[in-house]
Amino acid sequence: MPKVRVADLSAQLGGELIGAADLIVDRIGPLQSADDTTVSFLAHPRYAAQLESTRAGCVIVSPAHRSKVSHLRSAIVCADPYLAYARLTQWWAREHAPKQPAAGRHPSAVVDDSADVDPTARVEALAVIGRGARVGPGAWVGPHAVIEDEAVLGAHSRLGPRVVLGRGCTVGERCILHAGVVIGADGFGFAAHQGQWEKIEQLGAVRVGDDVEIGANTCVDRGALEDTVIEQGVKLDNLIQIGHNVRIGAHTAMAGCVGVAGSARIGAHCTVGGGAIILGHLELVDHVHVSAATVVTRSIVKPGQYSGVYPFEENASWEKNAATLRQLHGLRDRLRALEKART
Amino acid sequence: MPKVRVADLSAQLGGELIGAADLIVDRIGPLQSADDTTVSFLAHPRYAAQLESTRAGCVIVSPAHRSKVSHLRSAIVCADPYLAYARLTQWWAREHAPKQPAAGRHPSAVVDDSADVDPTARVEALAVIGRGARVGPGAWVGPHAVIEDEAVLGAHSRLGPRVVLGRGCTVGERCILHAGVVIGADGFGFAAHQGQWEKIEQLGAVRVGDDVEIGANTCVDRGALEDTVIEQGVKLDNLIQIGHNVRIGAHTAMAGCVGVAGSARIGAHCTVGGGAIILGHLELVDHVHVSAATVVTRSIVKPGQYSGVYPFEENASWEKNAATLRQLHGLRDRLRALEKART
Amino acid sequence: MPKVRVADLSAQLGGELIGAADLIVDRIGPLQSADDTTVSFLAHPRYAAQLESTRAGCVIVSPAHRSKVSHLRSAIVCADPYLAYARLTQWWAREHAPKQPAAGRHPSAVVDDSADVDPTARVEALAVIGRGARVGPGAWVGPHAVIEDEAVLGAHSRLGPRVVLGRGCTVGERCILHAGVVIGADGFGFAAHQGQWEKIEQLGAVRVGDDVEIGANTCVDRGALEDTVIEQGVKLDNLIQIGHNVRIGAHTAMAGCVGVAGSARIGAHCTVGGGAIILGHLELVDHVHVSAATVVTRSIVKPGQYSGVYPFEENASWEKNAATLRQLHGLRDRLRALEKART
Repeated sequence: MPKVRVADLSAQLGGELIGAADLIVDRIGPLQSADDTTVSFLAHPRYAAQLESTRAGCVIVSPAHRSKVSHLRSAIVCADPYLAYARLTQWWAREHAPKQPAAGRHPSAVVDDSADVDPTARVEALAVIGRGARVGPGAWVGPHAVIEDEAVLGAHSRLGPRVVLGRGCTVGERCILHAGVVIGADGFGFAAHQGQWEKIEQLGAVRVGDDVEIGANTCVDRGALEDTVIEQGVKLDNLIQIGHNVRIGAHTAMAGCVGVAGSARIGAHCTVGGGAIILGHLELVDHVHVSAATVVTRSIVKPGQYSGVYPFEENASWEKNAATLRQLHGLRDRLRALEKART
Repeated sequence: MPKVRVADLSAQLGGELIGAADLIVDRIGPLQSADDTTVSFLAHPRYAAQLESTRAGCVIVSPAHRSKVSHLRSAIVCADPYLAYARLTQWWAREHAPKQPAAGRHPSAVVDDSADVDPTARVEALAVIGRGARVGPGAWVGPHAVIEDEAVLGAHSRLGPRVVLGRGCTVGERCILHAGVVIGADGFGFAAHQGQWEKIEQLGAVRVGDDVEIGANTCVDRGALEDTVIEQGVKLDNLIQIGHNVRIGAHTAMAGCVGVAGSARIGAHCTVGGGAIILGHLELVDHVHVSAATVVTRSIVKPGQYSGVYPFEENASWEKNAATLRQLHGLRDRLRALEKART
Repeated sequence: MPKVRVADLSAQLGGELIGAADLIVDRIGPLQSADDTTVSFLAHPRYAAQLESTRAGCVIVSPAHRSKVSHLRSAIVCADPYLAYARLTQWWAREHAPKQPAAGRHPSAVVDDSADVDPTARVEALAVIGRGARVGPGAWVGPHAVIEDEAVLGAHSRLGPRVVLGRGCTVGERCILHAGVVIGADGFGFAAHQGQWEKIEQLGAVRVGDDVEIGANTCVDRGALEDTVIEQGVKLDNLIQIGHNVRIGAHTAMAGCVGVAGSARIGAHCTVGGGAIILGHLELVDHVHVSAATVVTRSIVKPGQYSGVYPFEENASWEKNAATLRQLHGLRDRLRALEKART
């Protein structure tokens, strides 16, 4: 790892440096496991006790903790230490990035003659790019990635290994799609007929806005008639299922294993916890926060935090309570009867 | 998009045309966003109000709505508008399909000499076909798809990009497996021994019937001793996990993110909502419908709709109710005591 | 299938043979569907009745069932029949394994000159191995597998088709990673800033111990600063999501569709049922068993079985009980009022 002066870090982050400006750090690390060449950060008051005991050479703290750093060799005071930490990692990653292969295509890639691949883009080994597809400036198409016919990958976007960008689907600029993502498989549409299922061909596509990140093996289905839409700045974690004709508003974030059924409309600036399920044809307004593993069965018209998860406990207690839960409606009636008898 | 006369559409669908036979449409779309060259449909009474305000050039309606279309330029009356819509999309897709590459194999595909690939099948770029594998007439093997040794892909079936069809597994005719599907990875079988796990080699395979569709990144494990079986006409959505030795009956459909544990037997004509979990070694009879996110912990011997999802609400209310739920069994006892005291 | 004498099987398993030593079997199968050339086993008392009616040529039983096999042509008595069955499948698989391709690399594989691939390893068609990567003796790199720069695959480990082993990640010896596994995609880390998300670059890696098995399409994210760690002997089923900086203790097993959020620490010898969700920053001690579909929202400091799943029932009953559940806290208060009134 390269070495850097904390004064340079501080300048980079726009913070105020306290202590030894010439101290050299060569690692970013958590307070607990830091050593004297580590730069660390305190972003949550919960970890304030670790600030006292850390051996970090430099800690990024908020103004509220300015008075608590005199025992450290150096500190950087920033208005928002967690944001400063994010930017520090970005700067670090840029500085330490392995040398990128030159623009152009690996000789093993299979690129259709009619595809329009910007000469500044990089197409890795064994990638496949179909007829009429377009790849923007500075884009990176990972090994085994498939860009189907007429699909578009925007400038400076990155497709990880074996991402599939389906026929006619578009991805905006500066997006990151991690390994195994599938954009534009058929939505799940069938009409029942005499006990069997008739396929409804999925004629829409998927449109992904700018600055979207999509986690490994996550799937976004193409629309039935119109497009499935992921607006700008959305962040999806791994193994998420987005059904056909869903619309996810700008800057909404979803943790892993979430499922969103067809035609649901999620607002902007929402968060959805891991494993939550959102049923189809619902609408969630902006600034709705759904707790992990919650099942959203109706539209949500008011911003706020919503939850619905069965509290876990030791199995023996759970069995008793769960069995009683099956009689809950009856218990209510018995309670009513008692109340009535008393009056 | 090509253009088509509504009279031709009506003939195609076997419906009764009302209004301007020569009207031209060039798009299928929902009632709300339709314009005068759009053909739309009314499949659910819930959207009847949209029929009044739509600007669609042509709407497919049921006989019950025949009297409500006089304001439209044209309409097609069909016994089952949703089915007609499905068939319309199929016809549309056939008409508008991009020209398919000729049968044969892309020069970059790696096909073992002992594989039996029908000359009318198409093998796309960088696909891999192993020893003794068979690919039927008219089948399509997508880019990066892998057909392992001795596996069989039936006539007119399609493997999307990077589908894996495991060793010795068989897929019937007219199936569609979307990108990232894994058929025939090892089932999850281990014997506990002195605090460690001994692998149980999975010696079965997977058999998939005719007319099955399987969604992106869904996994169907091979059986331990006998085969995992997906019967004809089954439709599985994305990111579903089917454990070893599961049997899914004909024409059953499952939405995204469902998990079915090993050796469960699901009947025919069942539906399973998104995110539901079905535990292992259970049996569900035919015509069972499991609601989304429901956890099936016992066999179901009677057809019907089954549910078990925690109702979500604002977080503050949920916290109170969930905390009380942990005392539910005790509450029942207190209620009993009160009832007893009264008598 | 090759044929084998039951006396040889018995010797192989270290069991005691009863009955016809020269009987030939050519198949391992369940008691119910066994015929006279099948070797079967009785591992659970639940299936004891099947022992009476089976037509198996040979059955592996525990000492407790030694007196119940006189009607069979042969039996093998082993202390732990399920373990014996596991070892039987291992032996069977070795005996019947298709001839492996010779060590070396398929000509279509793309291997960087700086990669260190042991000459006894096998690299299959269209695999990609990056700069400075290492592949140990006897390892198998499946078709389309990608080993990114500086990643390490240990001796005798197997990567299924299109597994991605991310940059700088390491996998120990004798591991099996099934098709579609993604090791080392970015963890889900963002800092909120003015209504948008700033990416936290994920600078850690993933370290997988020896004898680990990971199921199809499962994802293990790289750590933010330090590494995500899967200790030796862990078994993960399909479609599991392991967040950044999670640590999973040795010999823990998780069934399909589990999600473990970032920085959770799971102990050794734990089991987690299918579809369970474990929230972030929690700690589970050793020997914790989480039931299927349970949501773990707090740390667990005591070994044992923990559950929290909503009991399913017919939809009509569920609707009534679920509606009442929303009033549960109020019911408790009413019960208290009644109790108070009585005293």
